[in-house]
Amino acid sequence: MNSFGRIFRISIFGESHGPMVGITIDGVLPGIELTMADFEDKLQRRKGGILPGTTPRKEEDTPIFVSGLFNDKTTGAPLTIVFENKNVISKDYEELRKIPRPGHADFVASQKFNGFEDYRGGGHFSGRLTLCLVAAGVVAEKIISHFSPSVNIQSSIIEIGGDKEIESAIQKAIDAQDSIGGILECKISNLPIGVGEPFFDSLESLISHAVFAIPAVKGIEFGSGFHAAKMKGSEHNDALIDESGKYASNHAGGIAGGLSNGNDVVFRIAVKPTSSTPQVQNSLNTHSGEVESFSIKGRHDLCIALRVPPVLESVSACVIADALLIKL
Amino acid sequence: MNSFGRIFRISIFGESHGPMVGITIDGVLPGIELTMADFEDKLQRRKGGILPGTTPRKEEDTPIFVSGLFNDKTTGAPLTIVFENKNVISKDYEELRKIPRPGHADFVASQKFNGFEDYRGGGHFSGRLTLCLVAAGVVAEKIISHFSPSVNIQSSIIEIGGDKEIESAIQKAIDAQDSIGGILECKISNLPIGVGEPFFDSLESLISHAVFAIPAVKGIEFGSGFHAAKMKGSEHNDALIDESGKYASNHAGGIAGGLSNGNDVVFRIAVKPTSSTPQVQNSLNTHSGEVESFSIKGRHDLCIALRVPPVLESVSACVIADALLIKL
Amino acid sequence: MNSFGRIFRISIFGESHGPMVGITIDGVLPGIELTMADFEDKLQRRKGGILPGTTPRKEEDTPIFVSGLFNDKTTGAPLTIVFENKNVISKDYEELRKIPRPGHADFVASQKFNGFEDYRGGGHFSGRLTLCLVAAGVVAEKIISHFSPSVNIQSSIIEIGGDKEIESAIQKAIDAQDSIGGILECKISNLPIGVGEPFFDSLESLISHAVFAIPAVKGIEFGSGFHAAKMKGSEHNDALIDESGKYASNHAGGIAGGLSNGNDVVFRIAVKPTSSTPQVQNSLNTHSGEVESFSIKGRHDLCIALRVPPVLESVSACVIADALLIKL
Amino acid sequence: MNSFGRIFRISIFGESHGPMVGITIDGVLPGIELTMADFEDKLQRRKGGILPGTTPRKEEDTPIFVSGLFNDKTTGAPLTIVFENKNVISKDYEELRKIPRPGHADFVASQKFNGFEDYRGGGHFSGRLTLCLVAAGVVAEKIISHFSPSVNIQSSIIEIGGDKEIESAIQKAIDAQDSIGGILECKISNLPIGVGEPFFDSLESLISHAVFAIPAVKGIEFGSGFHAAKMKGSEHNDALIDESGKYASNHAGGIAGGLSNGNDVVFRIAVKPTSSTPQVQNSLNTHSGEVESFSIKGRHDLCIALRVPPVLESVSACVIADALLIKL
Repeated sequence: MNSFGRIFRISIFGESHGPMVGITIDGVLPGIELTMADFEDKLQRRKGGILPGTTPRKEEDTPIFVSGLFNDKTTGAPLTIVFENKNVISKDYEELRKIPRPGHADFVASQKFNGFEDYRGGGHFSGRLTLCLVAAGVVAEKIISHFSPSVNIQSSIIEIGGDKEIESAIQKAIDAQDSIGGILECKISNLPIGVGEPFFDSLESLISHAVFAIPAVKGIEFGSGFHAAKMKGSEHNDALIDESGKYASNHAGGIAGGLSNGNDVVFRIAVKPTSSTPQVQNSLNTHSGEVESFSIKGRHDLCIALRVPPVLESVSACVIADALLIKL
Repeated sequence: MNSFGRIFRISIFGESHGPMVGITIDGVLPGIELTMADFEDKLQRRKGGILPGTTPRKEEDTPIFVSGLFNDKTTGAPLTIVFENKNVISKDYEELRKIPRPGHADFVASQKFNGFEDYRGGGHFSGRLTLCLVAAGVVAEKIISHFSPSVNIQSSIIEIGGDKEIESAIQKAIDAQDSIGGILECKISNLPIGVGEPFFDSLESLISHAVFAIPAVKGIEFGSGFHAAKMKGSEHNDALIDESGKYASNHAGGIAGGLSNGNDVVFRIAVKPTSSTPQVQNSLNTHSGEVESFSIKGRHDLCIALRVPPVLESVSACVIADALLIKL
Repeated sequence: MNSFGRIFRISIFGESHGPMVGITIDGVLPGIELTMADFEDKLQRRKGGILPGTTPRKEEDTPIFVSGLFNDKTTGAPLTIVFENKNVISKDYEELRKIPRPGHADFVASQKFNGFEDYRGGGHFSGRLTLCLVAAGVVAEKIISHFSPSVNIQSSIIEIGGDKEIESAIQKAIDAQDSIGGILECKISNLPIGVGEPFFDSLESLISHAVFAIPAVKGIEFGSGFHAAKMKGSEHNDALIDESGKYASNHAGGIAGGLSNGNDVVFRIAVKPTSSTPQVQNSLNTHSGEVESFSIKGRHDLCIALRVPPVLESVSACVIADALLIKL
Repeated sequence: MNSFGRIFRISIFGESHGPMVGITIDGVLPGIELTMADFEDKLQRRKGGILPGTTPRKEEDTPIFVSGLFNDKTTGAPLTIVFENKNVISKDYEELRKIPRPGHADFVASQKFNGFEDYRGGGHFSGRLTLCLVAAGVVAEKIISHFSPSVNIQSSIIEIGGDKEIESAIQKAIDAQDSIGGILECKISNLPIGVGEPFFDSLESLISHAVFAIPAVKGIEFGSGFHAAKMKGSEHNDALIDESGKYASNHAGGIAGGLSNGNDVVFRIAVKPTSSTPQVQNSLNTHSGEVESFSIKGRHDLCIALRVPPVLESVSACVIADALLIKL
């Protein structure tokens, strides 16, 4: 399923080494102002080659508006945005194909698509497609702010490689020449009460569904999350203190019964270490049938988690935009 | 959205204190044998009143087949199963209504549905609806075993209140007269490679979507999960050692690129402590506008996590049945 | 797919000779008043045994509210309504099974569901399920009138067996002891402009999708319909004369570009003659492999079209309710 | 909703006068060979400027493969195909805007999208988007032939302006300088028995849903269609004569109970006269508030029906591809 959402509905397409990646957004309100400048900040934050530990592959990442925009305003028709893949070096991948890269989708993609998948650079599984998610997120935030101007979605890195000191953690990884993972937190403030739909579209269900579409995410927890399992009811329960939706605490992460409860919606995600590590690894050579040692060359992030915050904000925004439209 | 799934599609309905709760399953293959006996084991495991720490409310929980079954075999038409609510004492709830119970959906439901919700016993938000999920799960497992007989879905409690000794943990909760949470693990064995659909229907996305529909779940992690965020790439990557899908490790929890990779699919969920604790708590009296102390009377589980394993297996089975049908 | 709609979403279940037929409606607003009396008129109009030419099978057709209703008001949770099948004589069908009845789904159902279908009385293909559509239609009309009180949906028979004199046409059929078809018209008045969604959810697409779920419907045309194909552009085009959506004519049937244009939405449907005719017919005896002559016994309508008007109004109401909610 | 289908799922985007129109197809099998040559025949048949009575606007209409294709074979990832809009003259439309063209979506689009729609050349409502449907149809036919090689979908014009002599009918329209409509028939041969899904996804429902997305279609009938309403049951019923799905007649148009019955699926559609007629017409000048006489200049088809056959085949193919995949 390349689509997500019921009213604000996104459909993604493209591969890392094809001509372009893109996204079509259906259900966009007409009259929303949208210019290249709206995309700059989030795209910049996602971009590699800037932070230490991120890939030196440089892409211009300029959004091209294919449809749904006229005189810098959305028309209400499907909005399609594409990004050209310019800085592509495909020959790196031809040789590697016979040895599926550990941690990557190479092996499962080949099994699922009978060897017809575009294997270059991860193809449709590439992290490059998160660029499209970010573009959709920018549009989603515009729609959210149309209905609920005070809603704010903010994501940050809270831990890299188990270390709360992020810069030194990255330096350690660079020194060790090994990739590392991280934990991000996302906070959605000022969300109206009652966003989310029983029974199957709890806000946790919707957010987690979207979040696990981001490559490398392996866990999500809301509020106290896994720690809640160690708590007593009397500790965990958030006491309502004001009918506007104020509570004495926020162990529930702003969601009760699957619905936003007035508190900040707070969740954390676990991002695994980048699969492409410079270290020597083992994998099966599917031609020879032997397990071989090899190491991955190429331009890769040591810590993909560093680039995930704007992506996390974006998929969250897509969920919230859709859920808000349904609630209304 | 009371529906979930694309081909094997479930639609749930009912409230805790209405005449019945039920589920309709669309996309069921014809000719699947189905009798009351098939449901007994999972329903029994879910039932309260047996384990210490579970509610003494006793329901017969006998599935009634309303449609889609003929001569003990599925017909291919929508399969509807209902359970009558017999052992209901509604007057407990009338009085409590003005003070939303902390941790429950009372307040958000009232806000979302403008006070028209059936507030008795949690209404449509009640854990009683998980009974329907279990019924769907039984059917889903039958369909899975039709296509992939060796698939096995098993869920177990691995921690209660932070304690690996489950019985003593429950005793502690009984002694303290306070509710507690827990952690469950679910393992899906012998799943074919390639189950799940890029981009938005990663197996993690589908499972988490369904799992967060279970009341009280606040976190999910696959494979090494949150611990993966502390690992190095060279540690975390699972080396393929055999083309049938065998690996030297299973840090990815059996899912790569959002697709089953041949390893056991393994994930853990965090269940918060039962919201209804016997302890004195604070909440807003919405009539007086004052925060009051009160305690919840009634027949409640001290540890709802104890009853979740068959529910977790069931929603997992629903996801797998649907994903298998789509893959085929 | 037993479901239809995106926000106002109906899911149907049941068979003619099972314990009950029913429908679950998701996306119902909370606080809509709903009592048995609301259903009486439409159910009465659909009922057999009253008009000449309709079946003498008598059912009480009393709606039973299973969920989503509390104190005579909708709660916002899924609304399930069932109807018991009381007046059922199943033995009629056992004998007939080996000879698929011409015009019925017997043969195709048996092929599709490998002989496991509930073959009694048409099973899930029975016209009895239209009872559930009518129930959903009653709810849909309540929701429509909540948002657009002046919308009116009215359906009538305009032709039976090619004859505009309906009573005499029916008498002719009774005399000839042969079933007949008919043509119905449906008019939706005072619909706001712009209902329907490009590209694939044109109002014609949505209405026709729902209408062809009614058994026996074989054609639909909007406005001038098939006659439009014989017209010139200068004749067919409806000239706008007022910005509120008034036109000099209504050849388009109130729909332009797939959207309601302010005119009455007008369409006609063709209902084939009841498949169960008292006349001697031929069909294959699937046991002997021989084509045999036989005639259908049982309690059947000579002209099923007579009972379709409230069903047609109801599916139209479901479409409009959903499309209105999406537009808003 | 810019998407259609459940497994073989198409999402359309673009406007007549934007940079391009396109379509994304999800659920495409990997390994299907696809080259530019596969598209030539259908695109050529759809193209204007060749038949008398069609627009002299000339587009190259070359499909550009944006994703999902690698080494001339589908990869299993979303397949996106775009067509550039090269031969565009926008200034024609600026002036006309204040007077909504009769028969067009101008007025309703402006109302629905608050004046933000791209009004040039019909924008997203333009017949140019049928180009994308044709591209999807080519892919759909490839998938159908992968599973059921003998299925054949063929559409033809059977009547223009009420005249069975098509060439002379067109000449009459040219002479009269007025646009005309027409009737098309589509036949789907050798379809397996049982395609379509009860209750709401009858084959008639699916086909009509898709067909009414084609601009200018105002009616559809299956088999005897509207004529069936004049028939007796003993005449209309098709007698089964062979268990492989052979019948003595085909009044049902190959569909019983909403499922393909083994006969050819046969249906006809009514196409209204092209809205843009050279004749003088009346419409409201929305600036002055006066009804004015005017005539439409520009390059338009006198008989759009002439270009619809490949489009009709294509949407039918999309429906059948999806329904076949679901049946399997």
